[in-house]
Amino acid sequence: MGIEIERKFLVIGEAWRDAVERSEPMDQGYLGGERASVRVRIAGSGAFLNIKSKQGGASRLEFEYAVPVDEARDMLDALALPGRIAKRRHYVTHAGHLWEIDEFEGENAGLVVAEIELQSEDEAFERPAWLGEEVTHDLRYYNSALAQQPFSLWGKGADKES
Amino acid sequence: MGIEIERKFLVIGEAWRDAVERSEPMDQGYLGGERASVRVRIAGSGAFLNIKSKQGGASRLEFEYAVPVDEARDMLDALALPGRIAKRRHYVTHAGHLWEIDEFEGENAGLVVAEIELQSEDEAFERPAWLGEEVTHDLRYYNSALAQQPFSLWGKGADKES
Repeated sequence: MGIEIERKFLVIGEAWRDAVERSEPMDQGYLGGERASVRVRIAGSGAFLNIKSKQGGASRLEFEYAVPVDEARDMLDALALPGRIAKRRHYVTHAGHLWEIDEFEGENAGLVVAEIELQSEDEAFERPAWLGEEVTHDLRYYNSALAQQPFSLWGKGADKES
Repeated sequence: MGIEIERKFLVIGEAWRDAVERSEPMDQGYLGGERASVRVRIAGSGAFLNIKSKQGGASRLEFEYAVPVDEARDMLDALALPGRIAKRRHYVTHAGHLWEIDEFEGENAGLVVAEIELQSEDEAFERPAWLGEEVTHDLRYYNSALAQQPFSLWGKGADKES
């Protein structure tokens, strides 16, 4: 609903695990879309349809609606593009900000990224010790891109696979 | 939500107008999608997000969710593909079946089609006198197709325009 301002970073080491408050499994896929990506996500016991502009960067127009889990599963199974994202999302609060740490599974195993939602693109926040390089503007880390070109194939002539 | 079974026909003449019970304006656009088309529709005072399989024919997997009208308008303005559909939908009951008669406007003006929703593909129904040729299997009459290739351009070298 409205503009979402998010910054995304790689995660270094394992120390963040000690600060996890809760975690939930996520299974998601994409229906496609031209100017927006249309995502179906099952998160824990809920499900959501999400529409996010493809325009890159930290500020993206986003809409999200709760949908019945069984309908989300039908959409994922029958209508989603090939390439699903399975991950475990961990929630960590650090210095008053909520971080979402996504630990990817399947073909994206080995990738761990942390996202913070901000009120403005230049809002200040304290960097946790486990925070690595920023990848907000690297389109390869978009989940919709990871569904098509998974992390495990990067640098392995993945371009030839498609 | 689930399988939608619909048959679609051209409409002959104007006699159907006498049987109209109610009508509402519809403004809709498409976000794209590969195996499914993702539609945003403002209908009267409500708005809906609709996901329908592109697989042709009378039975198509379909999901629909109500969304706030202002968010639908934002999606249509910022995220929809070029090509919008404006039409007036008229509701007519004939011999116990509800017909939806779509009178298209704008670049699709002149096109009037009637749809009936059925419980099975071979369910019997009584044909109103104003019912013309069936076009259920003609992909050109899909609203998602009309948004890209409007009725007014058919047979006018429209293929060269895209």
